[in-house]
Parts: sequence; C-alpha cells; structure tokens
Amino acid sequence: MSVPLREVLAALDARYDPALAESWDAVGLVCGDPDQPVRRVVFAVDPISAVVDDVLAAGAELLVTHHPLLLTPVHGVPADDPKGRLIHRLIRGNSALFVAHTNADRAADHGVNDALAAVLGLRDTVPLDPTDDDPRAGLGRVGELDQAIPLREFAARAAAALPVTVGGVRAAGDPERPVRRVAVCGGSGGLLIDAAVAAGADVFLTSDLKHHIVSEWQQSTPLAACDVAHFATEWPWLPVAADLLHRDLSGRVEVAVSRRRTDPWTWHEGTNGVPAGRSAG
Amino acid sequence: MSVPLREVLAALDARYDPALAESWDAVGLVCGDPDQPVRRVVFAVDPISAVVDDVLAAGAELLVTHHPLLLTPVHGVPADDPKGRLIHRLIRGNSALFVAHTNADRAADHGVNDALAAVLGLRDTVPLDPTDDDPRAGLGRVGELDQAIPLREFAARAAAALPVTVGGVRAAGDPERPVRRVAVCGGSGGLLIDAAVAAGADVFLTSDLKHHIVSEWQQSTPLAACDVAHFATEWPWLPVAADLLHRDLSGRVEVAVSRRRTDPWTWHEGTNGVPAGRSAG
Amino acid sequence: MSVPLREVLAALDARYDPALAESWDAVGLVCGDPDQPVRRVVFAVDPISAVVDDVLAAGAELLVTHHPLLLTPVHGVPADDPKGRLIHRLIRGNSALFVAHTNADRAADHGVNDALAAVLGLRDTVPLDPTDDDPRAGLGRVGELDQAIPLREFAARAAAALPVTVGGVRAAGDPERPVRRVAVCGGSGGLLIDAAVAAGADVFLTSDLKHHIVSEWQQSTPLAACDVAHFATEWPWLPVAADLLHRDLSGRVEVAVSRRRTDPWTWHEGTNGVPAGRSAG
Amino acid sequence: MSVPLREVLAALDARYDPALAESWDAVGLVCGDPDQPVRRVVFAVDPISAVVDDVLAAGAELLVTHHPLLLTPVHGVPADDPKGRLIHRLIRGNSALFVAHTNADRAADHGVNDALAAVLGLRDTVPLDPTDDDPRAGLGRVGELDQAIPLREFAARAAAALPVTVGGVRAAGDPERPVRRVAVCGGSGGLLIDAAVAAGADVFLTSDLKHHIVSEWQQSTPLAACDVAHFATEWPWLPVAADLLHRDLSGRVEVAVSRRRTDPWTWHEGTNGVPAGRSAG
Amino acid sequence: MSVPLREVLAALDARYDPALAESWDAVGLVCGDPDQPVRRVVFAVDPISAVVDDVLAAGAELLVTHHPLLLTPVHGVPADDPKGRLIHRLIRGNSALFVAHTNADRAADHGVNDALAAVLGLRDTVPLDPTDDDPRAGLGRVGELDQAIPLREFAARAAAALPVTVGGVRAAGDPERPVRRVAVCGGSGGLLIDAAVAAGADVFLTSDLKHHIVSEWQQSTPLAACDVAHFATEWPWLPVAADLLHRDLSGRVEVAVSRRRTDPWTWHEGTNGVPAGRSAG
Amino acid sequence: MSVPLREVLAALDARYDPALAESWDAVGLVCGDPDQPVRRVVFAVDPISAVVDDVLAAGAELLVTHHPLLLTPVHGVPADDPKGRLIHRLIRGNSALFVAHTNADRAADHGVNDALAAVLGLRDTVPLDPTDDDPRAGLGRVGELDQAIPLREFAARAAAALPVTVGGVRAAGDPERPVRRVAVCGGSGGLLIDAAVAAGADVFLTSDLKHHIVSEWQQSTPLAACDVAHFATEWPWLPVAADLLHRDLSGRVEVAVSRRRTDPWTWHEGTNGVPAGRSAG
Repeated sequence: MSVPLREVLAALDARYDPALAESWDAVGLVCGDPDQPVRRVVFAVDPISAVVDDVLAAGAELLVTHHPLLLTPVHGVPADDPKGRLIHRLIRGNSALFVAHTNADRAADHGVNDALAAVLGLRDTVPLDPTDDDPRAGLGRVGELDQAIPLREFAARAAAALPVTVGGVRAAGDPERPVRRVAVCGGSGGLLIDAAVAAGADVFLTSDLKHHIVSEWQQSTPLAACDVAHFATEWPWLPVAADLLHRDLSGRVEVAVSRRRTDPWTWHEGTNGVPAGRSAG
Repeated sequence: MSVPLREVLAALDARYDPALAESWDAVGLVCGDPDQPVRRVVFAVDPISAVVDDVLAAGAELLVTHHPLLLTPVHGVPADDPKGRLIHRLIRGNSALFVAHTNADRAADHGVNDALAAVLGLRDTVPLDPTDDDPRAGLGRVGELDQAIPLREFAARAAAALPVTVGGVRAAGDPERPVRRVAVCGGSGGLLIDAAVAAGADVFLTSDLKHHIVSEWQQSTPLAACDVAHFATEWPWLPVAADLLHRDLSGRVEVAVSRRRTDPWTWHEGTNGVPAGRSAG
Repeated sequence: MSVPLREVLAALDARYDPALAESWDAVGLVCGDPDQPVRRVVFAVDPISAVVDDVLAAGAELLVTHHPLLLTPVHGVPADDPKGRLIHRLIRGNSALFVAHTNADRAADHGVNDALAAVLGLRDTVPLDPTDDDPRAGLGRVGELDQAIPLREFAARAAAALPVTVGGVRAAGDPERPVRRVAVCGGSGGLLIDAAVAAGADVFLTSDLKHHIVSEWQQSTPLAACDVAHFATEWPWLPVAADLLHRDLSGRVEVAVSRRRTDPWTWHEGTNGVPAGRSAG
Repeated sequence: MSVPLREVLAALDARYDPALAESWDAVGLVCGDPDQPVRRVVFAVDPISAVVDDVLAAGAELLVTHHPLLLTPVHGVPADDPKGRLIHRLIRGNSALFVAHTNADRAADHGVNDALAAVLGLRDTVPLDPTDDDPRAGLGRVGELDQAIPLREFAARAAAALPVTVGGVRAAGDPERPVRRVAVCGGSGGLLIDAAVAAGADVFLTSDLKHHIVSEWQQSTPLAACDVAHFATEWPWLPVAADLLHRDLSGRVEVAVSRRRTDPWTWHEGTNGVPAGRSAG
Repeated sequence: MSVPLREVLAALDARYDPALAESWDAVGLVCGDPDQPVRRVVFAVDPISAVVDDVLAAGAELLVTHHPLLLTPVHGVPADDPKGRLIHRLIRGNSALFVAHTNADRAADHGVNDALAAVLGLRDTVPLDPTDDDPRAGLGRVGELDQAIPLREFAARAAAALPVTVGGVRAAGDPERPVRRVAVCGGSGGLLIDAAVAAGADVFLTSDLKHHIVSEWQQSTPLAACDVAHFATEWPWLPVAADLLHRDLSGRVEVAVSRRRTDPWTWHEGTNGVPAGRSAG
Repeated sequence: MSVPLREVLAALDARYDPALAESWDAVGLVCGDPDQPVRRVVFAVDPISAVVDDVLAAGAELLVTHHPLLLTPVHGVPADDPKGRLIHRLIRGNSALFVAHTNADRAADHGVNDALAAVLGLRDTVPLDPTDDDPRAGLGRVGELDQAIPLREFAARAAAALPVTVGGVRAAGDPERPVRRVAVCGGSGGLLIDAAVAAGADVFLTSDLKHHIVSEWQQSTPLAACDVAHFATEWPWLPVAADLLHRDLSGRVEVAVSRRRTDPWTWHEGTNGVPAGRSAG
C-alpha cells in the first residue's frame, strides 16, 4: 500500500498551510519527486545526519522535519558540504525531505505550540500573537494550569513532561512565586515577552533565551521565565503531526517519530537549585 | 583620601581604551560629575537594581559595570522606567556610573577574555580575532591546557573555576573526546566559531549559544562546545580590573567587587549528564 | 496644596495627545518621578540652562517645554555634557521635565499654531495640513485678517504682536502688495509652502527660512514670506497652555510662564527697510 | 573681439576645478554651445529671472552664477516652469549659463571663502576644512583681525563690509565679548561649527543658521555666532572671479558683475540691538 | 488655423492619462511653451536627431514621442551633449517635445498594446496586467487568433504585419507547435512572462528578450516566444494616436507620423530558419 | 583510467581562478562528490535538460558549464522544479556539475573572451576592463583585424566564424564604414560600451543588446555595434577549455564538447540587409 508523495504533501499542507509561514522561512519540499510512491514517513525536529541514517535504514520514502535544511539559500548542494551530502544521500536513497516550520508553529489546534501547551497541562489556550484571519492560529499559546503552583514546581513539571535533555530547565524569578497563567512558545520565543506580559501570564516558557533579554525582563516585569532546550519544546509536536497524517490518509501510510534526540548538547556539569541571589565571589 | 572622578576615569580609559569598543557600543560615563571626589569604587557585571542598592549602601561614589545601562539610546530617563529610576537613584546618591564593555573585552593583558582564560588555566594565549594594531588585543582568546583531558572533565573544571550558576555548564560533542587547545570568548561569542575552528581549537567555551548555531556547528566540524552563563564568563574580570585600578591610582581609592550574582536565572531542574544520543521519546 | 505629577501629566496629555507627535519626535517625561507631588509648574520654549536656573530658584517641581532636551537619543547623561548637567540639576532639585512638541503643534484649539494665529488677529482659521482624524488639528493654520493691508504693514503688525527679538521680522515680496489671507506655522515651517499656496494665502509667516527655499518660492509663486525668530512664533502658546492646565486642574497647581527670552540671538546691526531690488555693489 | 565659449569654460575650470565640487552638486555648463563665440560675461550669485533680464539686455553671451539652476535634476525644461522658462530665454537669446558652486567655495586663493575673509579684513587665513590634496583649498576660512574688538563692533564691521540686505547682521553671544580669531563660511555653514571650535575661533560668521543649531551651540561652547544673508556672504566673490577671468583671457572678453541684489528679502521690521537676555513677556 | 499647445496637451492627456505612468517614468512636456500656437504635430517612437531634422524641416510646432528624451534626469542641457543639442534645436526651431510613454502603454482602447494586438489580428483582447481601476487598461494584451496556426507561421505573420527591421522576428519553441492564444507587450516585456503563462497564452511576442530569461522560460513552460525589434512593437501606435488627436481636436491641427525607422540596427547577416536543436560545433 | 573529481576541480580552478568571479556570481561545484572518480568530462554553455540527457547517455561523470544552474540561490531542489529535476538526475546518474562563469570570462589567455577574439581573427588583444592584478585578465578584449573592412563585411565574417544561430548577426552603424579595431565581450556586454569607446574601437561585438542602450550609443558615438546570440559568443571557449583540461591532466580524462546548440531561439522570419534609415510606414 502506498500513496503518491504529491498526495502526502497535500495532506500536510492542508493542516499546516504554507501561507502561515514567515516571509523569511523556507518550508515545503526540499528534495524528492512528487510523483513517487510513499509507504513510510518519519518525523523529526532536525534534518541532521543521524536522523537521515535512521530514515534510510528504515526505508522511509519521506522525512518530515520542523527545521529547514536550507534556511539560508544555496547556489549548490555539493557532497563535500554537510547539507549537500544529506541531499545526495536522500536522493540516492529515494527519500524525500519536507519542512513544516513557522507554518506548523502558527497552525491552529494541531500546531507546535498547541502540542507544547498540551503536554504542560494548560487549559483554555489561545495564541499569544494571533493571526489576522483565525483567532485560534498564531505564534505562542497562553493558558491556565488547574491550580497555582510555585515556580520551582512548575519547572519540575516541565522537566518531567518534556523530553529529557542535558540542560534541563532553568527558571528566573522567585522560585516560590505561585504561577497559574502560563505562556509558552516553541523554539526561540524571546520576541514574544511583551505579548506574554500583555496576556497576564505568570511565567513564560520558551528556549534560546539570552542573558540581556532575561536580565532586562526581570528588572522591568514580575513575569517569571523558564528556558528549556529548543529541541524539547518542539518534540511534542512530532507524534501529534504523525498521528494526524496517518488519520488524514486513512492509514494508507505508516508513520513514525524519530527517536533521535537532536538537541546538540551532550553533557552537563554544575549544581542544581542554587538559591536565588547567592553571592558570586 | 579621595581622587577626582575625572582622574579615575582617565586611569580606566588608559587600561580599557574606548577606541577599542565596537561602533554600536555605549561605553564611558553614564551619569555623574567628573569634578566630584571619589573614595570608593564598586565593580559589577550588570547595572541592575540590587547592585545599585549595595553601591548606595556602601557609600561608593562610582560603580563600574561591564554591561551598558543604555545600550539602546534614550530620549529621557523618567523615574517610572527601570533604567531611569537607577539614574535618579545614582544621581541623588552622588554615585557615578561608568561602563567598560567591548573595549574591556578587547583590551590586552587585563581584559575580560584574558581573565576568563586565566581562571581556566590556559597558557600561551592569543586573541581569536586580533585587532589590527596590537596582536595581544582583540576578541576571544585561544590557548593550551597543561595536558589533554576528556571534554566531560573540561566541563567539570569550568564549573569549578567559574562562579556557580543555576544553569551550570553544558557541553556538545563526544564527552570522552580529549581536548587540549581551548578557545574562549566572554559573553555571547557565537560569531567567533569560525575563528575557533581556524585556530585549531578542540573546544570553544562561551555563552548564549542558540540551538541552530550549535546544531549546524556539530554537523560540520569536530570542535566541541561549552556553554556557561554569560555572567559567569565575565565575572572573572571584575577582581582583575579592581586590583589594577587600585594599583594604577597608588591605593588612593578603595575598590570592591560586588558580591551580587547578576545572572538572572534562579532555579534549575533536570538530570545531569544524560548520555549523548539517547533517544527522546 | 499639591497634585501628584502623574495627574499633571495626564492633564497635559489630554490636551496635547502624544499620539499626534511625529514619529521622530521625543515628547513626554524626560526626568522626574510620576509619584511625587507638584505645587508649581513653569512653561518655557527651550530647556536651557538659564531657564533651569529660574525653575530651581522658584522651587517649581515641573518644567514644561516645547522643545525636547534629548531629541537625539543618548547613551548617558554625564554632568560634563550640557544636557546631562541639566538632568543632574533637575533631579537633584526635585524638578521634573516634560516636553509637548509636535503634539502641541498639531493639537486643536489650544495648540502652538492656534496661539500664533490668535496673536496675529486671524479669524476663521483651519490647519494648513489637517490630521486624518480631526479637521481642527494639524500643522500650521490659515485664516483671514479683518481687512487687506500692505505686506509692510503686516510685517509691522507681526513685529508688534510677537515677543521682541533682535532679528525682528523680515519679509519677501513687494512691500506694497496687499495681504489678507495669512498662513502661519510655528517653528520651522519651510515644508508647508506648497500647502500655503494651495490654501490661497497671500503671505506665509514662519521661521528658519533658508535662502534657497525662499529664492525658488519667490520665483515661482506670488505668495509673500515673513520670517521671524523661531522662539517668537512659539512663545504665544506658553500662556495659553499654562492657563489651560491651571483650569484643567481646578487651580490646584500654580502655573507660570518663564520670562527668559530663549532666542539665542543677542545683537543686530544693519539698515531696516532697504528698498526691494536695490543694486548690491 | 571674441573667444569661443569652450575656451572661456576652460579658463574658469582651471581656477575652479570641477573635481573640487561635492558629489551632490551640479556644476558646469547648464545650457549653451561651447563652439559659439563669447564677447561679454556677466557674474551673479543666483540665476533668477531679473538677472537673466539684465544679461539679455546687455547682450552677454555667458552668465556665470554661483548657485546651480538645476540642483535637483529634471526630466524636462518646459517653459511653464520658472526654471524651464529661463532655459528657453537663454537659448533663444544665445546666452550660455555656467555654474561654479562648491568648487568655487573650496578653491584656493580666489575662492568664495577667500573673498569673504578678505572683505572682513582677516589675515593669515587657512581653510576650516582643508581638502586632502591642497592645504590652501577647502571649505570655510579662519584668520585674525588686526586686534580684538567687541562682538557688537565686529557685527557692525560686517554690516559695513558686506552688501546691504534688509536682514542685516545678527549676533549670538555676549555683545561685549572681545573677538579676534574669526571663522567664516560663505553660504550655509552650519555644519562647520565643530571645525570653527577646533580652530580656536572667537566668532563664526555664516548664513542660514537655524534656531536649534545656534541654541545648542550657545549652550555648549563660548564661540559667538554671526548670521548674515546667504547672498551677502557670496557676493564678494563675484568681482574677484570676474577680474581673474578677464586677466586669464588677456582682456579678450568683457566682464561685469550683475548689480541685482538676489537676496529674496525685501523688507524688515523690528528693534535693533535688544539687550541680551531681556525677558520675553 | 492653429490651437494653443496647452489645448493639444490637454487632449493628449485625456487619452493617455499621465497618472497611468510608472513612478520612474518621465512623461509630459519636455520643452516648449504651452501658450504658443500649434499647427502641425509629428509622432515618432524615438526623439533622435534624424527625427528632429524632419520635424524642423516640416515646420511642425510639436513632436510627440513614445520614448522619453530625459528618462535619466539631468542637471543641464548643454549643446555639446546629444540630448542637450536636441533641446537647443527644438527651442530655437520653436518646436515643443511631448512624451507619452508608460501611460500610453497602459491606456485603454487606443494604447500601444491595443495597437500592437490589432495589427496582429487578435480578438477579444484584455490586458495581461490590468490596472486596479480599469479592467481595459494595463500592460500587455492577450487575445485570440481566428484559428490556430503553427508557431513558424505566426512568426511570418508578425514579420509581415510589423514594420520591416533588419533583425526580423525570432521564435523560441517548436516551430510546428500550433498557437492560437497570443500574448503581446510593446517594448521590453520580459517581466510579463508569468502573466502570459497565467493567461493561458500559447506564445508571447515582445522585444529585448535576453538569453537567460528565454532559456529558463523554455526549460520550465511550453509557452513559445517571439522577439521583434522594440521599435517595431511600438510603431503601430503612432497612426492610432495621430488620428485620435486629429479627431479629438476636430481637425484643427495637422498630424503626421514620422517615416524615420528609429530602430538602431542597420544590417543583418546569417542564415534564416536553422532547424531547432541543430548541433553547434 | 580515472582521476578523483577533487583533482579535476583543482585543475579547472588553477586555470579559472574562482577569486576572479563577480561577488554576485555562483561558480564552483553544484552537485557531486569530490571523492568520486572521473573518466569523462563534457563541456557545455548551458546546464539544460537536453545537455544532461547527453551527459548521462555518454556516462560522463562531470559536466562543466559556463552558466550557473542556481544563480538565484534556492531553499530546496525538489524534482517538480526544472532545476531540481536536473539535480536529481545528475546525482542519481553519478554525474557532477561544475560552473566556471565570470571567472572564465576574466581569465587570462584561455578565457571566454580570449577564445571569442581568436575565432574573429583579432591580434594583439588586451582586456577592455583589466583586473587590478593582471593586465592580461579582465572582462572583454580589444584587438586589431589584419586590415580594415566594411562593417557589413565584418558582420559576415562574424556570422561565418561563430556557431550558426537563427538570429544571425545584427549590426548598427553605417554598413560601409571601415572597421579595424574591434572590441568584443562574450555574453551580455552592454555595460562595457564606454570601455570600448575609450579603447578606440571601431566596432563592439557582444550579445543581449537592448534598444535603448544601442539607440543612445548610436546618437552619441561613432562606434558601430554587432549583436550575436549570447550562446554563440561563449561557445568558442568550450573546445579551448576542454583541450586545456585534457593537457593539464596529462590525458588521464577524456574530454568532449557538447554538440547541443543551447541558444533557445529556434526559428527566424524577416528580410536581411534592409538599407539603413529606410522609412518605416
């Protein structure tokens, strides 16, 4: 049993409309022929070499990733470049590569941010930055926990709910401060801080937060911060999207989520839970 | 015993030449009157509210910070803005604020990067990106450990040598890989990766590394990565600069390093030392 | 009797909506704390040193000026810079500084241009460049004198009605030409010439007119020009705004208009009234 | 006796090298045929209608002006545009138009700034902003009076030495302050204030000075200001250039300076010599 | 019998609204006086020297061209520049020059593209790129031939219908391929290829097609191409516009179409009709 | 017998230094693995589908083209895009693609322009626009024919010497004008007209000349023009480069020049040799 790639791509585009992507983004088909049949589809966060190893070993004809392989456009795909080598391996292995990035972030109901909010147990979520056309679509989500819990407990809950990474979960703000209203943004969400404040959130969980932005934020608002691995905020979307595709195609393709941890960090050292404000010297 | 502020600033400028600062930077005197006397100087990484509390409590007439208060220029300093409030408190408390930022990063021999390399035990260091005029000045440093050690041991050594922070030290690359040649850059050093590769480093330690840059880097080079708190990479410079000023002014001013940990992160959750490449699901 | 600064600022913003300001402008609170009480307010055109002397001598807690102190944004307010020194003196003297600039120019009914038109005796005035939302708001005004008078007589009337300045009033065009419909623009109005022509004005009075713009204008249209000191065109607004604030706060603050002439010109030499077109040699 | 226009232009270019002009400037031949003979040349500051009347009445085949007719480039010269009409009249009247603008400003020894400095009696003049190639060429001049005189007396001397204009001479600074070292810049010289300060001048005379620049300048430096009509600062160059051309061509063309006053201002009202700092109300 | 130039221009503007021109274009009156009488008008594609010879020989007071003389704006029109020389000759010969360029391209019903479509026998034409306001106005036209003919026959028909030029007509695509739906664009129409594809055209005829654009186009779409001389695509408009003006002014001016071929190419060598895909060596 | 692709590329780079390419160009390896062996190399002007057919049919492991496949950089190479399809076919067929474009244009002695000048019989050639470092390298060439011949005869000679194309050779200028000094530029050389004038050329042969540039050029200079197919000007380089590579690798690879005519034009209609200046109507 197989489905033409063209039909699989149409099903993905129907859920993750490419028109929702940022103007600078690079979504859609990266390599592969829409006329070829697909039996098996693998979902992963990053199109890296180890993921491609697994895709080829599994004989999957399609790899769907969240991150673009060629966000910076290229004049060639020579095999002595790491990205070009992936292209050569995929084409020779008859595997296509498809990207759903900021369109999957913004999509309503089954998007990256919906999946992240769901694993954290948020209810009544709405986008932090809704699109003009659909109040359920847009970047980030904000919703409520069942009850208020201390910030340190929320951090522990996030660490338990998300894929384990070496970096774990960092929080900024008074660890005992109760939080109930939670804003989240899968990936690098630093630009949505003002939206999180405006939404009345108690804490904002996202990734790739840099020192200056968090330092200024903690000086000017009571909103607490949680920083987790970029990979970990987007991984929860993979099983959601895989199941959805399986159902949308009435089970005519097999789907799988790559078990590769594509977070690049491999080791961690240092003390947990240093009390806030301890002296440095 | 006191020294006119003008003379203190001249001593600082002599060590940390403002001409070394980036064109976008904002170094020098932020508030205060060069004609007023100074008896006590406090050094800190960030000009935040808690640091100003200590400066005023100590009766210091000058606060020297590494980070600018007003990197984004302003049309006013009203007291209902967090930064304007600091200005009001400093002016009313008769304390000046002075910034040595990218000029302190680039300075030769006693700069931020020299201090970071020294606490990590590097020898024979040279800048990663030397200035045109002085081969000992410039951004970053690269040098040698006494002997090669596994990456995980290097991470542990960094955790021990730098101020304790909740986030600790993260590493990317095979934890058992031996490293001897070490590149460092205080603050956000992501733009110096190519220079670290060109310098033949085995590992590059810096801060504020984002997912995409590390992921691409680990796909394309064998250079390992270490990420530590931005604050922790710059703190080692504080006692160096304080002692130097004390000596340059022949002991006529008292100097102190603020004991405030200005890293904004206050809590951490999650497992240390997850084996590399473990599956995510 | 006093009013919190916050309440005074709200009253000023209600009359001079900051949303009317140009995007490049710098209006609002420059220094001072909205929580502090205000008993006395001084109004002036320019925030210069002599004006601040008077404000502090009078014990006023608020100075309202038309011109911004920090139109070009700054990275610091050190006291060895003239503007930084004013900030230090105001903060130490417990005086706030507030700016209403292009929002006061554009405001309806009680704005800078209304006040200028009123002292010149214009009737039935409307803006030269109305805003989209309010036909009574906008830059410049055009209106009618009671009867047509020669240009030279209009110049004499302007000289009598406006604050005395060393530069007086210059006119371009035939001195005997009758004028009745008059366009005005407080401050530097050279960009509104086309609007003045379109409005059917006989003469346009403004300030800071440069040679090339007037020379081209006199070659291409019959519209006469009057140039007066920038300060003199904006001064008439001060008593209007002061009285209005006094009334809006039901007399709970004292108001005063600074008597400093902040026009920088101090001396004048040369013959008045040279006949037009006289030979130069 | 006549000279081909081509030869006249070569003589002018030899004194006023077009390579000295600003990149945005528009110098050289505006209309006319280099192959036609020239018997008479008229010099004027501005190419305005009244000047062209005189040129055509005098039967001059060449008009040399300091200001460009078409500084803003055009897609056509139709006769219902004031500038296009001048082009039609000149072409039909067999008169050429040639412009020497910023090249004449910068030229050494016989340039616009040399002529201005000379009529004010300055000695040992050098450029305020020298060119890279010739220390005697460049914008502005700074030199010495024979002896120090009060600012008010200097203003009176300038009023007497320059062509009479309705606006006369305005000064900023203490009228009794002695001045000896004098900076000048023909035309709009506001951008050279820093150079005038750096040159140690006591006073800077130029034209088209706007309020904000003079107000800030008077708050930050002791340098006095004199503002005169733009036309008046450039007129002194006309007889210098006319005589030079006559000599350079061995008397083979007649030369004349237009006696038209091309300053657009025609009338003045208001008191002279108001004491500095007088109150405004 | 004569008509004021102003009235002639108004009639042309009524048919070829200058508001339809591109923002970068330069249409309207280039030289001449709207108050002068016009008896005879000549129409041509290009304002070149040979055309001006004919205009002056014919004593016509107005030349109307499709191409601007001064598309790149100028700071002068000296007679030693080819374009300035034309201006001198026209002004001295009392002939005006008027341009209708992209406004004539876009105009409805009697525009350049309508005339081109008409001589090729197209029916039911509509613009390829309609304006927002008028569905009959816009760039390019697409319409139908009476019946499908082979591409080579269409090329031969175009060669017969358009003015003879040395370059003739080149076609790309299978010469035997039938074409019926035809897109055209007078002048350089390379940017409208996507619109021609979207309009379902079989062939697109325009001029100035460069190698890379045609090569990519032939690799990616079945749309055939025809390239003819730029001059030849615009010439058909001349008699249309001339007749229209004559009628609009009730015969009060004489009109003529210049018989000058202003295509710059003068000679051709090389074989016609080489079979497609022949080897090159 | 085979050579690693890496070594073949090194030989090509040694002759056609990539540092000579324009900053906007896209030269070098487009697809393929430098570690694979190469036995046969094919050279062509354009990387189009028919050329790839031949390369794969011939079993060549490397295609060298003059024109880039991906001059506009891409975010993917999907097989439903014409360029992506070529990439898929080449990778699956084990054929690499390498581009030498503006570096081959500029290269000394064996470059595109040298080859073009040679087939036209020019002697003593030098670049029209030499590089800073090498007087023999640069864009275009200018040299001498053995003796002067009429322009029409030069056009016939070019038609005979270059590959036959349907468009043949067009000339602008008097067909009888003698030409001896000849400038050439392979590809689109319109920007080198001024250089050709400065070099004293009688005629400039290049391709892709558009109407406006030739029309202005013929109005302002006596330089004649010849326009030939872009493909035809670059084809002569193919055998030169192929032979050179064969020799540089001591015959260890087979080389061949593709016999595909990649000029996209397939048909021509219209009269040759219309006399210059014939009327159009």
